[in-house]
Amino acid sequence: MNILVQKQPGIWMLRWGQPEEHVPSRQHYAKPPRNEAIGRLPAPPLPFEFGKIRFTPGPRGCRLELPMAAEEDIYGLGLQLKSVCHTGKKRTLRVNSDPVADTGDSHAPAPLYFSTAGYGVMVDTARYAAFYCGGQRRVGKTPSGPEAEGSIALDEEELYSSRTTDDTMMIVDIPVAQGVDVYVFGGPSMLEAVRRYVLFCGGGCLPPEWGLGVWYRTCGTHNQGEVEGLADELRREGIPCDVLGLEPGWQSRAYSCSFRWSPERFPDHQRMVESLADKGYRVNLWEHVFVHPSSPLYSQLLSRSGDFEVWKGLVPDLSTAEARKCFADYHRDSFTSKGVSSFKLDECDNSDFINSPWSFPECSEFPSGLDGEQMHSLLGMLYQDTIGDACRQAGVRTYGSVRSSHLFSPPQPFVLYSDLYEHGDFIRGVVNSGFSGMLWTPELRHAASAEDYVRRLQAMVLSPQMLLNIWSMPHPPWCQLDKKLNRAGEFLPAVEQERLKALTRDILRLRMSLIPYLYNAFAEYHIDGIPPFRALVMDYPNQEELRRIDNGWLAGRDLLAVPFTAGEAERTMPLPPGVWYDFHTGQAHSGDIHLKPSLETLPILVKENTIIPVAEATERVRDGMHYNLTLRCYGPKPRPARLFADDGHSFAFEAGRGFHGEVGADGVLPPELTTRYRVACVQRH
Amino acid sequence: MNILVQKQPGIWMLRWGQPEEHVPSRQHYAKPPRNEAIGRLPAPPLPFEFGKIRFTPGPRGCRLELPMAAEEDIYGLGLQLKSVCHTGKKRTLRVNSDPVADTGDSHAPAPLYFSTAGYGVMVDTARYAAFYCGGQRRVGKTPSGPEAEGSIALDEEELYSSRTTDDTMMIVDIPVAQGVDVYVFGGPSMLEAVRRYVLFCGGGCLPPEWGLGVWYRTCGTHNQGEVEGLADELRREGIPCDVLGLEPGWQSRAYSCSFRWSPERFPDHQRMVESLADKGYRVNLWEHVFVHPSSPLYSQLLSRSGDFEVWKGLVPDLSTAEARKCFADYHRDSFTSKGVSSFKLDECDNSDFINSPWSFPECSEFPSGLDGEQMHSLLGMLYQDTIGDACRQAGVRTYGSVRSSHLFSPPQPFVLYSDLYEHGDFIRGVVNSGFSGMLWTPELRHAASAEDYVRRLQAMVLSPQMLLNIWSMPHPPWCQLDKKLNRAGEFLPAVEQERLKALTRDILRLRMSLIPYLYNAFAEYHIDGIPPFRALVMDYPNQEELRRIDNGWLAGRDLLAVPFTAGEAERTMPLPPGVWYDFHTGQAHSGDIHLKPSLETLPILVKENTIIPVAEATERVRDGMHYNLTLRCYGPKPRPARLFADDGHSFAFEAGRGFHGEVGADGVLPPELTTRYRVACVQRH
Repeated sequence: MNILVQKQPGIWMLRWGQPEEHVPSRQHYAKPPRNEAIGRLPAPPLPFEFGKIRFTPGPRGCRLELPMAAEEDIYGLGLQLKSVCHTGKKRTLRVNSDPVADTGDSHAPAPLYFSTAGYGVMVDTARYAAFYCGGQRRVGKTPSGPEAEGSIALDEEELYSSRTTDDTMMIVDIPVAQGVDVYVFGGPSMLEAVRRYVLFCGGGCLPPEWGLGVWYRTCGTHNQGEVEGLADELRREGIPCDVLGLEPGWQSRAYSCSFRWSPERFPDHQRMVESLADKGYRVNLWEHVFVHPSSPLYSQLLSRSGDFEVWKGLVPDLSTAEARKCFADYHRDSFTSKGVSSFKLDECDNSDFINSPWSFPECSEFPSGLDGEQMHSLLGMLYQDTIGDACRQAGVRTYGSVRSSHLFSPPQPFVLYSDLYEHGDFIRGVVNSGFSGMLWTPELRHAASAEDYVRRLQAMVLSPQMLLNIWSMPHPPWCQLDKKLNRAGEFLPAVEQERLKALTRDILRLRMSLIPYLYNAFAEYHIDGIPPFRALVMDYPNQEELRRIDNGWLAGRDLLAVPFTAGEAERTMPLPPGVWYDFHTGQAHSGDIHLKPSLETLPILVKENTIIPVAEATERVRDGMHYNLTLRCYGPKPRPARLFADDGHSFAFEAGRGFHGEVGADGVLPPELTTRYRVACVQRH
Repeated sequence: MNILVQKQPGIWMLRWGQPEEHVPSRQHYAKPPRNEAIGRLPAPPLPFEFGKIRFTPGPRGCRLELPMAAEEDIYGLGLQLKSVCHTGKKRTLRVNSDPVADTGDSHAPAPLYFSTAGYGVMVDTARYAAFYCGGQRRVGKTPSGPEAEGSIALDEEELYSSRTTDDTMMIVDIPVAQGVDVYVFGGPSMLEAVRRYVLFCGGGCLPPEWGLGVWYRTCGTHNQGEVEGLADELRREGIPCDVLGLEPGWQSRAYSCSFRWSPERFPDHQRMVESLADKGYRVNLWEHVFVHPSSPLYSQLLSRSGDFEVWKGLVPDLSTAEARKCFADYHRDSFTSKGVSSFKLDECDNSDFINSPWSFPECSEFPSGLDGEQMHSLLGMLYQDTIGDACRQAGVRTYGSVRSSHLFSPPQPFVLYSDLYEHGDFIRGVVNSGFSGMLWTPELRHAASAEDYVRRLQAMVLSPQMLLNIWSMPHPPWCQLDKKLNRAGEFLPAVEQERLKALTRDILRLRMSLIPYLYNAFAEYHIDGIPPFRALVMDYPNQEELRRIDNGWLAGRDLLAVPFTAGEAERTMPLPPGVWYDFHTGQAHSGDIHLKPSLETLPILVKENTIIPVAEATERVRDGMHYNLTLRCYGPKPRPARLFADDGHSFAFEAGRGFHGEVGADGVLPPELTTRYRVACVQRH
């Protein structure tokens, strides 16, 4: 180790050898740390002896061995859909859109992990590094004597399940690089280590309030009239909705993209955007980064792109200032200055796991000197930041969707999503993503049954984004869940449609009523670095029984969401220490809880002595609107609830024009909060 | 390109840059080419313009781009279980034991592919190279004008299925290496290109005749008495069997291995081995390469092993002469000179896809200078060759099992197998493995139903190894198919047991009756390089309809095996050109065939004008025994059948003491064949 720098209190940078030129921390998207907020965290001890880290460069790249105690459990490594706790596993961080096995492949792998021992480690690399999270042992590390004959396994699972109780190590195998910077984030607690990382990256994003409302992606074949018709239908039916997303069909050419409105399907798009705005809808546009020859961007980007095409389109090198400016300016002039608020950034990951891989090879070359492997790691972040610029330049505080991310993602106002669709994986994604300062939506695409439909909707209520992604069906899902029948216009019986519609409305209204609570959680993400959605282990690292919970998460400071999946009738799960109250009924629980929710019910538990502000549900968020709150008090001595008040839609909060305040069980709001909130009622449970 | 060497007629070696030191061709296991046999193949044209190959070194390693025409289809890349034709796909050749997706991960990936255009390409690397098998396009390669608006996809499959009709390229992305040797194998036909590769590697293996008999792996918990009891039971029941395999329990310590007999379970192992030999059984021993501290090999290998342990055992560096000799000599002295004929070489692949990865990291270091990635690629081959030596030194012509392989495998007398167990994958493995000069068994481990059981047995009849791997059940499968019930000693009703036993017996007897035919197929593998089991496309590359057949294969020159899987009642498949006869009934077919086999029937088709020698089935192969043949003649003008005669069990054939001859429909054998064969009957169909 050559250099050890204390960057901020409790953050150490360690350097070995000569790091590569193209690393995440040197990209344009790496924002300044929020030093003041970091300074407010308690000073941590040195998490482990840095002198014990072993660095070995070689022809393949370099290897790090970091000490790890037998009792440590390891989390993070980006969006991991297949397991929560990585201890004892190998994780190779290849960027990939449809990983089917628990190997580390991910839309958004990040070389960053956190330990229950209360620290985090970020490896500043754009390489597909492999992490061996314990279980490996050097030859001769401990004297090994003869042992008793072991028992004989008779199935594969037993055969391969051997685990060690010795102290072990984390091995990081970094391809190519002959040196690397490692950042260690101290705690003392696990949550504080995560917060230090988030604040180091510039703090978490604060979405506009409308971003926390309901999103509906319209059918891929819809034209302008059909989109407007849907907009009217949703309002008519009283289905809350803030954002309408248009799929590839809005473009004259997609796969690859022209980035131009289709003259056939959207001849009068500007009028449509304005008319949707009048009805209270924000417009989100689907795109990917690959530039079709018919795009106005093509000629400008031809010399600023990688050497291989994707879908016969260019892959612009957004790590260069020129390509980035060209791409951002075009989006500003064509879209964000003309009423478009948001984008869905598709296909910026990679494609090893599907039948016809479509993305650029890892051995591609880019004008900046990035190679394809590095570009795959960074593209999602480069793309987010470029589009974020296009929004900011037009004064649009955006919130969008993206299919890849990496280190330094916390400030980016984008939510990850996937084409993979196993509901358990989707729920696990929410649990996991918080460790890496990422946001993930367990979106609804379609449903195998009414139960599946309802459970999938419920799983989004306390998630970063409430998204009905109905891109493959022309009619709303409550008309017909079956894709083929929906396309054929064959609807469910009217009674069933009404039932589904009512269920939908109730779930979406629950989401709308929790916007003030969620908005505050995001404010705390922004200001204090607390991930709004977190695994239980993050707040309770010493509770062994919570370390592998992958189907429930903490939402904000005080709620615990326990979404169910179709076919799951009941569940017994351990609660964190203390008393927890049923959000709906106020019933108190502690220890293990047995849940058997009716179809209508998303189980939500509330930490004792908490006030949850619940708003009167509206069909959409209006800029600067007042929320009428019911303060629900749980437990005998409720602490004040926190609320954040700004205009909810501009960048004014960044200049300090936002107020973070409290309201107690007396219901008296400080004056700064009255600009946005009214207390209508105080309820005691 | 710096060097272009014509190695043998139709084989070119192309060198770029400075290849790595540790490559497959420089390992001890690379045998001398069979130049004389190569010289007998027709001279091929240059397969493509070598000048068009583009080589790009860079920090990640190096990239090759090879020309590829739009109509070419690509096959090979080692044992690939998930698809047969690789055109348009990306294949990353990571060594792995349980790959679950169609991405190139494999027990036995090999950087070697063959094209329907009639050539093969071998990339001499031990790196996890990635092959982009067409579909990629350089920017600016062809002028791209604006295109019509495409249709809008409404499901993911449609979205990602776009394919190009342009000429494309094969991209090979080789990590680390700054140079590489590429070997091009000319045809002119695809089969001839494959043959050239096999002969370049030293020709295919010729198993001892007993290796083509029936194998039965005994239960992991079995002790000496139980193994002997099983041996008696099989003979008593008239179940053919040549080889009994012992699982880890034969060792005093396994996972990792002591390589010593268990004094508890096998106190009198030498007597047992001899007694089994008296009953006509060969003994096969399970092991893996990882050396437990209690092993006599440990101290000798401590300084000759990698720096990381596996299951607390050493990973010996078998690429060094010292470790290799130590390991081989020990096996010779302890086992092969004491009556053991064969080994099952387990766990020599890698373990990314299972819950607790157990193998050494890719960033390991070995005394030879090999790193872990290279060692994973080569370990299976190093292990086979080392154990092969231990056998040869004791005069044992072996045939065994192995879980990993790579380039230069054809001469190795080992058959690949897997813990994965999807029957379709197992069948596909036979179809695929021939392209890479590998052998693969669709072994039986257990069965979900009687139908599954029978279909799995049938699929092995015309495969490299007929293996009942009953390691997880104490009683034969015909007593009870269900693992748990079998372990509990709860058997099927007697009638069902008798039915299953009779079905088993019939299938195994069919296998035994085909040994002369299969032995000749292996002789042609050895002498002429013709893979004994081949995809239809290998012999018929221009039949578009055969290019993706993954559930039937050619066995030997003249048979086409079409195994069925449980639940599959019927199948229509295209036949290769000409008339094909039902092996069992003699019925003639051409064009498409509709198959609806009864449970008892493995569909086998015979090429027109063929004589198939069918032997009287015996319960085992005896050294130097005579086969009583029925010559089954199909079609009006049957060509003579070929037979190979040597002693069947020694290395004498290598010194020319083997005879390859013919027998026509007159049934008259040349004198050299009469040493092993008698014609009992000639049947015309």
